[in-house]
Amino acid sequence: MSVIEDVFSYVDENRDRYVELVKRLVSQPSVSATGEGINECADLVAEALEEHGVRAYTYTDHGGSPVVFGEVKAEAHATIMFYNHYDVQPPEPLDEWVSDPFNPKVAEGMIVGRGTADNKGNIAARIAAVDALFNTLGEVPVNVKFLIEGEEEVGSPSLARFVELHQQLLFADGCVWEYGYRDKLGRPVLNLGVKGLLYVELEVREGRGDLHSSWGALVENPAWRLVKALSTLRDERGRVMIDGFYDDVEEPGQRVLEMLERIPAEVYDASTLFGARVLEVENPARRLLLEPACNVCGLYSGYIGAGSKTVLPAKASAKLDFRLVPRQRPEDILAKLKKHLSNMGYGDVEVRMLQGYPAARTDPEEPLVELITSTAAEVYETEPVVLPSGYASGPMYIITNTLGIPCVSTGVGYYGSKPHAPNENIRIQDLITGIKHIALTMLRFHRALH
Amino acid sequence: MSVIEDVFSYVDENRDRYVELVKRLVSQPSVSATGEGINECADLVAEALEEHGVRAYTYTDHGGSPVVFGEVKAEAHATIMFYNHYDVQPPEPLDEWVSDPFNPKVAEGMIVGRGTADNKGNIAARIAAVDALFNTLGEVPVNVKFLIEGEEEVGSPSLARFVELHQQLLFADGCVWEYGYRDKLGRPVLNLGVKGLLYVELEVREGRGDLHSSWGALVENPAWRLVKALSTLRDERGRVMIDGFYDDVEEPGQRVLEMLERIPAEVYDASTLFGARVLEVENPARRLLLEPACNVCGLYSGYIGAGSKTVLPAKASAKLDFRLVPRQRPEDILAKLKKHLSNMGYGDVEVRMLQGYPAARTDPEEPLVELITSTAAEVYETEPVVLPSGYASGPMYIITNTLGIPCVSTGVGYYGSKPHAPNENIRIQDLITGIKHIALTMLRFHRALH
Repeated sequence: MSVIEDVFSYVDENRDRYVELVKRLVSQPSVSATGEGINECADLVAEALEEHGVRAYTYTDHGGSPVVFGEVKAEAHATIMFYNHYDVQPPEPLDEWVSDPFNPKVAEGMIVGRGTADNKGNIAARIAAVDALFNTLGEVPVNVKFLIEGEEEVGSPSLARFVELHQQLLFADGCVWEYGYRDKLGRPVLNLGVKGLLYVELEVREGRGDLHSSWGALVENPAWRLVKALSTLRDERGRVMIDGFYDDVEEPGQRVLEMLERIPAEVYDASTLFGARVLEVENPARRLLLEPACNVCGLYSGYIGAGSKTVLPAKASAKLDFRLVPRQRPEDILAKLKKHLSNMGYGDVEVRMLQGYPAARTDPEEPLVELITSTAAEVYETEPVVLPSGYASGPMYIITNTLGIPCVSTGVGYYGSKPHAPNENIRIQDLITGIKHIALTMLRFHRALH
Repeated sequence: MSVIEDVFSYVDENRDRYVELVKRLVSQPSVSATGEGINECADLVAEALEEHGVRAYTYTDHGGSPVVFGEVKAEAHATIMFYNHYDVQPPEPLDEWVSDPFNPKVAEGMIVGRGTADNKGNIAARIAAVDALFNTLGEVPVNVKFLIEGEEEVGSPSLARFVELHQQLLFADGCVWEYGYRDKLGRPVLNLGVKGLLYVELEVREGRGDLHSSWGALVENPAWRLVKALSTLRDERGRVMIDGFYDDVEEPGQRVLEMLERIPAEVYDASTLFGARVLEVENPARRLLLEPACNVCGLYSGYIGAGSKTVLPAKASAKLDFRLVPRQRPEDILAKLKKHLSNMGYGDVEVRMLQGYPAARTDPEEPLVELITSTAAEVYETEPVVLPSGYASGPMYIITNTLGIPCVSTGVGYYGSKPHAPNENIRIQDLITGIKHIALTMLRFHRALH
C-alpha cells in the first residue's frame, strides 16, 4: 500500500475514535456571548491536542478569552497553520432542538449538537489528521501550528492583540481557515476570502419622555426620523446610497471573474435554498460574494406588544451591518455614514459602532489554492467549487494582512449543517473525508509550497 | 350654608375616602390590550357604584368586555350621562415607573399609578359627586346614567353593538365625557369633541425563516421594505402623503375659528409643555385640534437586544395611528392607505386594521356647553379653556351621532398627568375640585337643559 492508502485506512479504522473526539468537544458548552464554559473548553482543547501529539500552550496575556496555540515541530522547512475557534453561538431557541445541544447525539450517520459544524468538528478533523499521520508514518511531514481562539462568534475583539504580542510564534507558509461545506451535489465548497464587517446601532432619542400619540400631529417622532433616515441609505435593489460608499471597491481581476463564471447556482440561489425573495440584481454571485452590502438586523421603537397602544415614542433605534470588501475600511465607512446622515438633514440620528474589521482575500494564484483544490478533488472525487470570497465575515485579515499568510477555507460541514441554528449537525462521512483532505494536504504541503 | 357650600364641604371632609376609591380602582389591573384583569375590574366598578347609591348592571350580551351601566332614578325630568372606561393602557416600559403602576402611591399631593388620570380617577370623581349629593341632600337632583366600558384603549370595538342593543337605556339630555385636565395656569380645559382613529398594523412577512445576515446582499429584507414603504406616508412637516387623505376634511366654521383664536399657547405648545421638538407648521393649534395626522406608535424587526447579532429578519412590522377629523371615515382612509402602498410598489406590506372610529364634535351653541363652562368657571375660579375639539380620540360619535346626545369632556387630570406613559398621575387637589365641578353641574343640570 502507498503512504496515502495507509493513512486513509487508518482514518477509516479509527472512525469511532474521531467521532468520540467531536462528541467530547461538543459536550463542553463554550458560549462566547455569555462566557459559559469558555475557560473549560480552552483547557479541553489543549488536552485534546496534547493527547494527539501536539504541544499545546494556552495564552491569556492579550486580555481576552484564552487562545490555544498548538505546535508540531517537524523535520521540515514548511509550516501549515490551522485557524479555528472553540467558542460557539448560543444554543437558543432550545425548544427547536431534537436533542440536547451540548449532549451530542449520533444517529443516522450524523452528529447533532451545537458546534458540530461551527467549529468543533473542524478542530477535531485537524487534530485527527495529525494523529493519523503520526500513527501511520511515525511523524508529520510538515511543521504544524494550531491557532484556536474563543471569541470568533463575538467578533474576535482581542485576536489582533494576541497576534501583535506573539507574531514570532505565528510564522507559516499557508493557513487552512476554519470551515467549509459540501453542496447538494456533494462538491466541497472552498473559500478564498471573507467579507469585512461594520456593525452599527443608529438611534434617535428625544429629550422628552413618551407622549400620548395624539401629539403626533405636532411633535417630532423619532420613529419617523429614523425611518426617513434609513430610507436614504439603500435603494430597492440593495445598492447603498451613501456618498463614496463604493469608492474603494476594486473591480475584480480577470482570474476572479473567471472563477465567478464557474460558480454553480446552488451556491447563491437563495430562492431555491431558502424559498427567499431575492433582490433584482444583474449578477447574483458577484453581488453575494464580491460586493459590499447593507442590512437591517434590527428595528425598534415604541410599543411592539400585542394589539394597539397609542404612543408617541421617545426613541427609535436600528441595528445595521455593512458587509465590506477588500480596501473598504470600517472606520472610513462609519465616517461616510455619519456624513451622509448629516448631509441629508438627519444629524439627530446618532451612530455607534459595535463591531468592525476589514475583508480578506487570498490571491487565486497562490500555490496554497492549487494545493487545497487538488487534494479536495482527489479526496472528494469531484471538482470542488472555489469561491473567490465567501459571503460571511471573519477575522481572516489578521492572517492574510497582518501576518501575510495566504488562507483557504475548507471543512467538514454540508449544505444542511445549520450553523448558528437549532439542530446544527455534521455527517460522519463528511468528517472522515474531511480528515483525509487535511491529511493529504499536509502530505503534499512541503512539495507544493516550497 | 347654601346647598352648594354643604356639598363642597362634604367633598372636602371626605377627601381621604375619595382618594381611597381612586386607589382601589387603580389597584385592579385592567389592560384591555392583553385582557388582564378586565372582568375583575368590571365587577369592582359595579361594586363601587352600588356602594355609593348607584344601581349597577353589568352587560356582556354585546359580545365584548363587560359594560357597566349605572343608574340613579331621581324625581326629575332631566338626565345626565357620564361616559367613562375602566380599562387602561399597558403599563410598559415598567422600569421607568417610580412605583408599581398597579400599586398606587400617594405622595406630595399626588396619586401615581396606571389609570389615575385615564380614566379611573374620573370614574371615582363622578361616583364621589353622586355620593356627596346623596349624603348632603338625601337625593340627587337629576337622573344619572353611568356608561362605563372596558375597551376604550383598544378602540371600543363592541360599544356600538352595546348601544344598538340597549338604546332605550341610554336616553339622556347631555353627556359628560370621560376626561379633562388643568393647564399650567390652573385653567380647566374643556373639549367639545374628539378626533377619530384608525389604528393599523403594517407587516412584511417572508415565507422563509431568519437567515444569516450575510445573505442581505441578495435576499429581500422585510425591514428595508417596511422602512421604504413607511417613508412614503408622511412628509417632514407631518403632512400625510396618501392620495385623497384630506379629501373629506372640512374647513372649520366661523365660530370654531374664533374659539381657535382664543386658545392659549399653553394648550398646544409642546416645546414648553414637554421639552419636545415640534414640527414646523403654520398654525399649531389648528394642526393639533382640527387637522388629521399620522403617527408611528411602534416599529419592530429582527434583533433588538443588547450588542450585535447578525441576522436577516423574516418579518418586520409597524403600528400606526391616524387621527381623523369629522367626515373622514376610517374604512375609507384604510382603503386609501392600501391603495397608496400598492401604487407605490409596496403591495407586499400587509395592512391590518386594529381600531377604527370616526371623529365627533358638539356644537358650541349647545346649552350643555354653557352649563359646563360656567360651572367650571365657578369651581375652578378661573375662565376655562374651551377647545372645539380635543386632540385625542374616543368613541364619542356613538353618543353624539348614534344617540344624538351633546357631549362635553372635563376631568381631574392636569398638564403633568402623563396619560399612556410611565408615572401617570393626578393631583389630589384636582380630584377634589373635579368632584365639586361634577356635583355643581348635576345641581344646575335640570334648570340649564330644560
